[in-house]
Amino acid sequence: MKNEQWILSKRPVGVPNLETDLTLKQMETRDLNFGEILIESQYLSLDPYMRGRMNAGQSYATPVEIGAVMEGEVIGKIIESKSKLYKKGDFINTRLGWQKYGIVDEKSQINKINLPSELPITYSLGVLGMPGRTAYLGFTEVCKPKPGETIVISAASGAVGSIVGQIAKLMGCRVIGIVGSDSKVKYCKETLNFDICLNYRKQDIDKELGKIGENFVDMYFDNVGGEVSDAVMNHISLYSRTAICGQIAIYNSSSIPTGPRVARTLLTKQSTMQGFIVFNYEHKYPEAMNALIRWIQSGEIVYREDIHKGFNRIPENFMKLFEGHNFGKLIMDLR
Amino acid sequence: MKNEQWILSKRPVGVPNLETDLTLKQMETRDLNFGEILIESQYLSLDPYMRGRMNAGQSYATPVEIGAVMEGEVIGKIIESKSKLYKKGDFINTRLGWQKYGIVDEKSQINKINLPSELPITYSLGVLGMPGRTAYLGFTEVCKPKPGETIVISAASGAVGSIVGQIAKLMGCRVIGIVGSDSKVKYCKETLNFDICLNYRKQDIDKELGKIGENFVDMYFDNVGGEVSDAVMNHISLYSRTAICGQIAIYNSSSIPTGPRVARTLLTKQSTMQGFIVFNYEHKYPEAMNALIRWIQSGEIVYREDIHKGFNRIPENFMKLFEGHNFGKLIMDLR
Repeated sequence: MKNEQWILSKRPVGVPNLETDLTLKQMETRDLNFGEILIESQYLSLDPYMRGRMNAGQSYATPVEIGAVMEGEVIGKIIESKSKLYKKGDFINTRLGWQKYGIVDEKSQINKINLPSELPITYSLGVLGMPGRTAYLGFTEVCKPKPGETIVISAASGAVGSIVGQIAKLMGCRVIGIVGSDSKVKYCKETLNFDICLNYRKQDIDKELGKIGENFVDMYFDNVGGEVSDAVMNHISLYSRTAICGQIAIYNSSSIPTGPRVARTLLTKQSTMQGFIVFNYEHKYPEAMNALIRWIQSGEIVYREDIHKGFNRIPENFMKLFEGHNFGKLIMDLR
Repeated sequence: MKNEQWILSKRPVGVPNLETDLTLKQMETRDLNFGEILIESQYLSLDPYMRGRMNAGQSYATPVEIGAVMEGEVIGKIIESKSKLYKKGDFINTRLGWQKYGIVDEKSQINKINLPSELPITYSLGVLGMPGRTAYLGFTEVCKPKPGETIVISAASGAVGSIVGQIAKLMGCRVIGIVGSDSKVKYCKETLNFDICLNYRKQDIDKELGKIGENFVDMYFDNVGGEVSDAVMNHISLYSRTAICGQIAIYNSSSIPTGPRVARTLLTKQSTMQGFIVFNYEHKYPEAMNALIRWIQSGEIVYREDIHKGFNRIPENFMKLFEGHNFGKLIMDLR
């Protein structure tokens, strides 16, 4: 098979440079060994965490090596199998990366896709996949919600934030979203039924939160970091819980970013700030999936996708994540 | 009775100015009403948290009003009583503040001192009082130690830090102290048996911790904040717990101090940072006291006091807390 791959050719300093940091490579796929399967990528999920994998520095996972294929989860179709566990034609989720075809050993992390038939298969990369589980488990396990409490969510219309907010509404919480455009504000308020939604590009978040109340933010689900978070931290309540899920505002920083110190705020408010990765809650995936499937089927949770075609266009679409230009779960359709 | 009080006459901006911010006031004590007791202050505890009470801004307790007596816990002797609960001659702990005599209602928070007779009464202001309970409960409830783990403690020779480190040793942890003088280093290593002790005035803490290992700090008990904490955060382990107990390095800041952002570190290390106040763990005080009394009696925990005489000298001794000049629990002997 003629394969194509996006290779990390250089570690980005700051914002990735698409001309130098990523290179398109072509090759033939090799023959399968016993126990291996050949996968054709159907859909590739693009997510903020991928920027972290481009760095040499410490993150929660091993960085992508220079010269290696960029990482990522796909929906794949098995087109050849020398495994007894998987057969030709099966649809699976696996971390094939940014390539058209890939060979995977049957012992790798491979999940057969097993969604109710009326649901789009792409949901396995979003609300019924890693982002959905991140939302459910980050909210329930780290934010530890109580009914009637107030949660602020940054990147509130995004793949994770939009699910967190809707679960919070279902659990009887007040939801305040922070987003980067008026159309996202409208979506959060009218479609997702968030109580309040602010646009950080147009509004002074610190000031707007100050109008809502004093020390009223019981939970903060943070997908962005940076100045938006600085503003939110000024309004946390006594015993508040902040879940650090993502820091997209600073992923492209080439030096260690500085900002107001949070330790004293955490002390005086007797509050907790916790970074979490969903992989650490694997034992709770079935609970998360059952709840999410039920809510999606009943229509209590709605979900938006942002699907683009074209293997060549993966890098430029990836960049949208850092510019706030995508709206909904970003997925590449590679069929 | 001729009483004297130290009054907060002006809110300090930055480092307190002893000439303008605190004023000595003299007055006669009034007659007792039914249910009240007249207390003569024997010993006054001086603690870092008092700086926070001098500010108008939010803290975990109401600020001292301008014109009011500075707050603080004392060992008091009851010299007159119109209460059926307390009699003349009783020794008690109560929050009488910086004054020689005070009248307290029997319904106030008053604790009769009930220590084993061989122990100094002043321990009720330290290892067997608020600082000791803070050490025990901050360590056990917030740091959540496991045997074999490594803890870093800032202000490690202080009233709280020295107890935390000794409890950590008793629980099978490796203890690394950070202090501000060579005599404190010597004390931590030779008297308290900490495994390692660093002097932040002479050593580059980030570099020194880097020599010890990589991502090895499972727990950080932070009494100081600021640059010392920045250095420690570079070395936290996966799933680490940071207990924010005090931030003396920034208590005198007149603006919001800035520093390296910690959110991304907490994310990649899946770690927790929690501010706590001991008052929130009141239900566990008996557990803490029983353990501490046992360890003090057996000699497994040693404890150092720094006692000074003179009501007039309270302010100048208070300032030592911010200069690192005291060594051991700072107490004023007012007898």
